[in-house]
Amino acid sequence: MTANELIYAGKAKKLFTTDTPDVLWVEYLDQATALNGLKKDTVIGKGQLNNQITSRVFDYLTAKGIKHHFIKQESATEQTIQRLSIIPLEVVVRNVVAGSFAKRFGLEEGAKLAQPIVEFYYKKDELDDPFINDAHVLFLDVATETEIAELKAQALEINQVLIELFNQLGIQLVDFKLEFGRNQAGEIVLGDEISPDTCRLWDKETGDHLDKDVYRREIGGIVSVYEEVLRRLEQLEGEK
Amino acid sequence: MTANELIYAGKAKKLFTTDTPDVLWVEYLDQATALNGLKKDTVIGKGQLNNQITSRVFDYLTAKGIKHHFIKQESATEQTIQRLSIIPLEVVVRNVVAGSFAKRFGLEEGAKLAQPIVEFYYKKDELDDPFINDAHVLFLDVATETEIAELKAQALEINQVLIELFNQLGIQLVDFKLEFGRNQAGEIVLGDEISPDTCRLWDKETGDHLDKDVYRREIGGIVSVYEEVLRRLEQLEGEK
Ligand SMILES: Nc1ncnc2c1ncn2[C@@H]1O[C@H](COP(=O)(O)OP(=O)(O)O)[C@@H](O)[C@H]1O
Ligand SMILES: Nc1ncnc2c1ncn2[C@@H]1O[C@H](COP(=O)(O)OP(=O)(O)O)[C@@H](O)[C@H]1O
Ligand SMILES: [Mg+2]
Ligand SMILES: [Mg+2]
Repeated sequence: MTANELIYAGKAKKLFTTDTPDVLWVEYLDQATALNGLKKDTVIGKGQLNNQITSRVFDYLTAKGIKHHFIKQESATEQTIQRLSIIPLEVVVRNVVAGSFAKRFGLEEGAKLAQPIVEFYYKKDELDDPFINDAHVLFLDVATETEIAELKAQALEINQVLIELFNQLGIQLVDFKLEFGRNQAGEIVLGDEISPDTCRLWDKETGDHLDKDVYRREIGGIVSVYEEVLRRLEQLEGEK
Repeated sequence: MTANELIYAGKAKKLFTTDTPDVLWVEYLDQATALNGLKKDTVIGKGQLNNQITSRVFDYLTAKGIKHHFIKQESATEQTIQRLSIIPLEVVVRNVVAGSFAKRFGLEEGAKLAQPIVEFYYKKDELDDPFINDAHVLFLDVATETEIAELKAQALEINQVLIELFNQLGIQLVDFKLEFGRNQAGEIVLGDEISPDTCRLWDKETGDHLDKDVYRREIGGIVSVYEEVLRRLEQLEGEK
């Protein structure tokens, strides 16, 4: 299998068709963005780190019985995935007060939430991915009421599995963003990536940010931090 | 019955205790505010207009079997209400694209929504009344899941009744904000006011704004516009 035609060039990845109609080829790019693309930099090595991290995380989800789009890591920077019709929602799950949630409620970062919180953002660059509620999702006609419930249930189940994974890595899973899509059968399936670009990951001992906040907030280099996450994933794999 | 002790001085009204513990006395003020109080002006006559409009609207709700806090208009600028423990949520219902909804989705104002949309905002001046979702309401611990459903159901029922009322006045009810509270029995009951300060009202013939947007957007005088709404309410009353 190999990449054919480029069909999408995103902020972090390129998508290509393959010879199999419902399989896509993904190339992870050496590019970091923040503020919805306003801040943008080339970061050599980031593409392969996120490809490898995401691949390992999805393999872990497979082991835990979560359905998703990931097929296989194909090279250092490439992977194959099942083609989905992506639902244009960023499904955010929060376990700890941070980021826009902290700002919205005037809270300091760091307090553990009594219950995980799910939020929807409309994935639309021109609108800066606005925060929306369930009624807005219906208005946008991107998911039905049953599908909204399904998205929340899957997001919360994935959260439990990921908390457990990162816990084994000495990492607190603060919050993260998921994207879902519909497969050929019309089922809702997890897509996109799960990496330090899309998760807030705090070292359990030191509280250090092991995620894109080091770039957003300019508090360190991306590469060494993402390498640390990959190193811990590889070590866990080795232990098994 | 008369006003005793001042217990709250808000942006539009003052609240006083009365000799009856669960009855409050409300004085409507000659004050207009926008942008969460950043813009503020004295508007002679506004207090009595909103008091009279709100009193008539609540009387209409009574006739339609909606429970609420309003007892009686006491004078041109004053009314009595049942004391509630206010739930700090602004419950917004939208029938037509306008205001922050138009901005959020990059839409022009004016399109009719296929379904009315309910939104919650956390009533907290220091935070600028942030838009929140149901999970946030639970996080804030201001309403239970059952109460959230009850708030939405009541808001939508009130919407139907108000659409009908304003329709008879030649006015399109674009959107509006409600506040609810718990009475002594713990029931959720409609509180606060329903006036051109809290509703977007568009003349059905001309499309003219008959509401606080004339002040927010500086497109006219508040008094003449609010007078027009009151005049139409009085005329409807006269016809009955
Ligand atoms: N399984 C899938 N099938 C089709 N598209 C997908 C799948 N998984 C993710 N995508 C989409 O591929 C794109 C990934 O590229 P990315 O650089 O993250 O783009 P963006 O800048 O839009 O976030 C996103 O638009 C994402 O929604
Ligand atoms: N029935 C009620 N019992 C107690 N408080 C009420 C009742 N109805 C409305 N309120 C509260 O009274 C205040 C009304 O004054 P207002 O000038 O509108 O205040 P604000 O500037 O806080 O919006 C609001 O805080 C509102 O929540
Ligand atoms: Mg992306
Ligand atoms: Mg008020």
